[in-house]
Amino acid sequence: MNLFVGLIACEDRPGLIHQITGVLIRHKMNIIKNEEFVDRESRRFFMRLEFEGDAHETELRTELKKVLPNMSFCEVKSFKKPRLVVFVSKELHCLGELLLRSSINEMNAELLAVVSQVEDGRDLARRFDVPFHCVPVSKDRREHEERILQLIEPMNADYLVLARYMRIFTAEFVSHFPDRMINIHHSFLPAFIGKDPYQQAHERGVKIIGATAHLVTEDLDEGPIIEQDVITVDHTCSSAEMARRGQDIERLVLARAVNLVISERVLVDGNKTVVFR
Amino acid sequence: MNLFVGLIACEDRPGLIHQITGVLIRHKMNIIKNEEFVDRESRRFFMRLEFEGDAHETELRTELKKVLPNMSFCEVKSFKKPRLVVFVSKELHCLGELLLRSSINEMNAELLAVVSQVEDGRDLARRFDVPFHCVPVSKDRREHEERILQLIEPMNADYLVLARYMRIFTAEFVSHFPDRMINIHHSFLPAFIGKDPYQQAHERGVKIIGATAHLVTEDLDEGPIIEQDVITVDHTCSSAEMARRGQDIERLVLARAVNLVISERVLVDGNKTVVFR
Amino acid sequence: MNLFVGLIACEDRPGLIHQITGVLIRHKMNIIKNEEFVDRESRRFFMRLEFEGDAHETELRTELKKVLPNMSFCEVKSFKKPRLVVFVSKELHCLGELLLRSSINEMNAELLAVVSQVEDGRDLARRFDVPFHCVPVSKDRREHEERILQLIEPMNADYLVLARYMRIFTAEFVSHFPDRMINIHHSFLPAFIGKDPYQQAHERGVKIIGATAHLVTEDLDEGPIIEQDVITVDHTCSSAEMARRGQDIERLVLARAVNLVISERVLVDGNKTVVFR
Amino acid sequence: MNLFVGLIACEDRPGLIHQITGVLIRHKMNIIKNEEFVDRESRRFFMRLEFEGDAHETELRTELKKVLPNMSFCEVKSFKKPRLVVFVSKELHCLGELLLRSSINEMNAELLAVVSQVEDGRDLARRFDVPFHCVPVSKDRREHEERILQLIEPMNADYLVLARYMRIFTAEFVSHFPDRMINIHHSFLPAFIGKDPYQQAHERGVKIIGATAHLVTEDLDEGPIIEQDVITVDHTCSSAEMARRGQDIERLVLARAVNLVISERVLVDGNKTVVFR
Repeated sequence: MNLFVGLIACEDRPGLIHQITGVLIRHKMNIIKNEEFVDRESRRFFMRLEFEGDAHETELRTELKKVLPNMSFCEVKSFKKPRLVVFVSKELHCLGELLLRSSINEMNAELLAVVSQVEDGRDLARRFDVPFHCVPVSKDRREHEERILQLIEPMNADYLVLARYMRIFTAEFVSHFPDRMINIHHSFLPAFIGKDPYQQAHERGVKIIGATAHLVTEDLDEGPIIEQDVITVDHTCSSAEMARRGQDIERLVLARAVNLVISERVLVDGNKTVVFR
Repeated sequence: MNLFVGLIACEDRPGLIHQITGVLIRHKMNIIKNEEFVDRESRRFFMRLEFEGDAHETELRTELKKVLPNMSFCEVKSFKKPRLVVFVSKELHCLGELLLRSSINEMNAELLAVVSQVEDGRDLARRFDVPFHCVPVSKDRREHEERILQLIEPMNADYLVLARYMRIFTAEFVSHFPDRMINIHHSFLPAFIGKDPYQQAHERGVKIIGATAHLVTEDLDEGPIIEQDVITVDHTCSSAEMARRGQDIERLVLARAVNLVISERVLVDGNKTVVFR
Repeated sequence: MNLFVGLIACEDRPGLIHQITGVLIRHKMNIIKNEEFVDRESRRFFMRLEFEGDAHETELRTELKKVLPNMSFCEVKSFKKPRLVVFVSKELHCLGELLLRSSINEMNAELLAVVSQVEDGRDLARRFDVPFHCVPVSKDRREHEERILQLIEPMNADYLVLARYMRIFTAEFVSHFPDRMINIHHSFLPAFIGKDPYQQAHERGVKIIGATAHLVTEDLDEGPIIEQDVITVDHTCSSAEMARRGQDIERLVLARAVNLVISERVLVDGNKTVVFR
Repeated sequence: MNLFVGLIACEDRPGLIHQITGVLIRHKMNIIKNEEFVDRESRRFFMRLEFEGDAHETELRTELKKVLPNMSFCEVKSFKKPRLVVFVSKELHCLGELLLRSSINEMNAELLAVVSQVEDGRDLARRFDVPFHCVPVSKDRREHEERILQLIEPMNADYLVLARYMRIFTAEFVSHFPDRMINIHHSFLPAFIGKDPYQQAHERGVKIIGATAHLVTEDLDEGPIIEQDVITVDHTCSSAEMARRGQDIERLVLARAVNLVISERVLVDGNKTVVFR
């Protein structure tokens, strides 16, 4: 018996579920879990199914394509491990989280490489036997991104993960990886967009700080949000102390977002996400 | 266009979703949202659907009954307001929460009456124009419950809500209201079962306290849990202070549980609940 | 034996605690709990003490004034109940929370009156026997505020609580109540300042929504934050559903902020608060 | 200028704070932050001070000892890094958390060694250059513990950290490290004491699961609690899924507890802790 996962995102129309389940029942598949959501404003239909049976993936896929041309569909059993490239700068806690999870099988992905503009992450990547590439910045921003592209394109990564990478990619770079770049921002977006969010939070005197994982679009800190979480702070916390405490939540939020994405639970709906947990 | 909610709990078998959606599509209904869950251990199938269209409830119900005899099914538009009887003792915050929500349309239910063994709740119930009945305890516990039954049976309540009611009902009493009594226990069950949970929590030195809303069965504090939540405490909290802080969470957990039950989101699965949020 | 609370906010200098405790020990007072905080940037000293003994308040106050002219100091035993005026518009949940808490002794304050520009809150205030005053808006904003001032000045309130009052007071009005107006804003400030924060939150696709209680200054939504809290939402939440869920957290955050303020736990430090819990 | 931390735990008596601050002011020390707590039941006094100035630690200590013989006192500047030995079995996430934090300077401690009864942790310890010692179990439990003692005694550790170590130490072993062994239990104590807490949690149908870090005493899972936290689960979570999700909170709770202990913020008060955050 095989276990499958199916993801659907399309225009809503009556009868979709019946059509999909019709194909599945003809193949004697049993649906274990399904979640469905229709965005009333965009009239988009989103669905995630887990089902099991003896059918072969190719046949199923062919028949499902007939009724639903844009269904993305994958068999869990033969699930190819997603391939990730991680970007990092001087703060290493998010990178460390991903390396650790990967090494103790808490994150079902392959870490192809760590890329940075500085050397700080090299030692940590080496400890987990992941190749580290330093691409120093140059005056010409395009030229710097070009060198990164040349480095990572042969890696054939499924996703790029910006694990506190402190440089901003151009729209041109981002366009190479639509809905495939995940960033962690160290604030509760849309509060404290941009530089030094903990400093901003300290100046504003907030009682809670947060972290946000989002897909990268050409607008900085404006992409679809995947996951957010917060922790409490108080008047005794300096901005440095906030930064220290915030690390725990940044690590967790990024790791959860990556796990949601690679387990096929995140669909993009305009500038928002549909997340099936 | 009418909006409907359907709830299903039955033995799992292949094709259930296809059969249900088949009926719906023949009636030109559009499914807005559905959630489904199969308990792999008990092989039980649970589903909640929201759908809309122009069909009439009676026809739909008849056809659905053919394929699914035990589907509970209700039209939201014509939704009969659930009728509640609330039990209370000396602590009034949970009663107050229900009265307040009901009066500002945050809880779509009709409060038929407040019942107590003492007079403390009378003034609060009166403020919200809800009848208050004091049934003083007597030596004979059965006789006391008999008087309560005679009082509330004519009210024809859908649910009894124990809002910090400090007496324990006999199995005989509970058997009159299977899966229809909701209790709030002032601890994070199964921690601190029974009397004085805040005193127990203080003695144990816990750093978090909680509240649990559950369906009442004949075993005290052992029924299916609907909702739980917690708040942090520290070494400076006396048990009295814990009790004071815990009120906030008791009120919220009970109100959320009642709202989940009356909006047809809770199904019972053995000694657990399936809660579709 | 009497129980006292002392609050101090002044320039930091060495020896402050020793001087204060010196006065207390000479009066045979025993300190039960103290918290102290020095803001390293502003060099301000903040302290809250609870202590007990047989001394009289007047003597203690006189001696403490000698060493600390700006110590605010109050005996808990003879604690005058703070007097509150509550402002409300059409959304009644925050008003209801305050009325309920006050009536079941969860908030140690006297509710002098409810003021609104509309009639919606009248029935709820009446249920709790609190006078309700409708001051309809007029074309001239100053004139409207003048009528409110004339109404409430004779009440001699300690604090004004804006419980989802949807009008913005002028700087002139606010200047009459420095650090004495508490507002609840239905977002996690500084995110979603201004109008319709739930609509803004829905459009941005956030996964968490919040509420913020703050002191009112002349800059809208920019005053010192007292308390914040959040709840999770997901893609299925419309902005209306966010508004419904957010009510729970608005009520709780406002009630906690009011309780902190009236139990002498909040000190203002520039545009921030020091909150001793 | 030096920064100091002082910790006091003693019988309560009037004048303690004045005496302590008297010594400090005579040495021209300025108190940056202090927290104090008197347990009204045990009449015990607990205090933590941070203060700065030019005095030398030895002089200060001598004078403070005169007024407070049992004050534990340490200079932060010359703070000796606490030395930890970590115990682990097959689950490696808590060990990984400690190794990672230590390597990126989020935990100010020296990891002397990792000890286990199995080989599973060897590779992870090696990645961080921490010595790993496997001490296989033997039929004679005392003999096994004796071998562990002989191994670790020369290491002169300040604390032993049980990072999901699945064996129970005898009272005899524990007596060698009073208040110096920190354990993580994978439930919200006192719920689900003992074996397989996630399996227990799944059977009970709870809606929240937790983790508890506590000091080890001779009674299993009954020692003073340092830190607890929880996450929500729902009916779709198998016990295996609970175990997977629970890892995040176990790691965080253990790391926070270790950081609290090694930054001199935890005092023991009978079977409870006083934690100055």
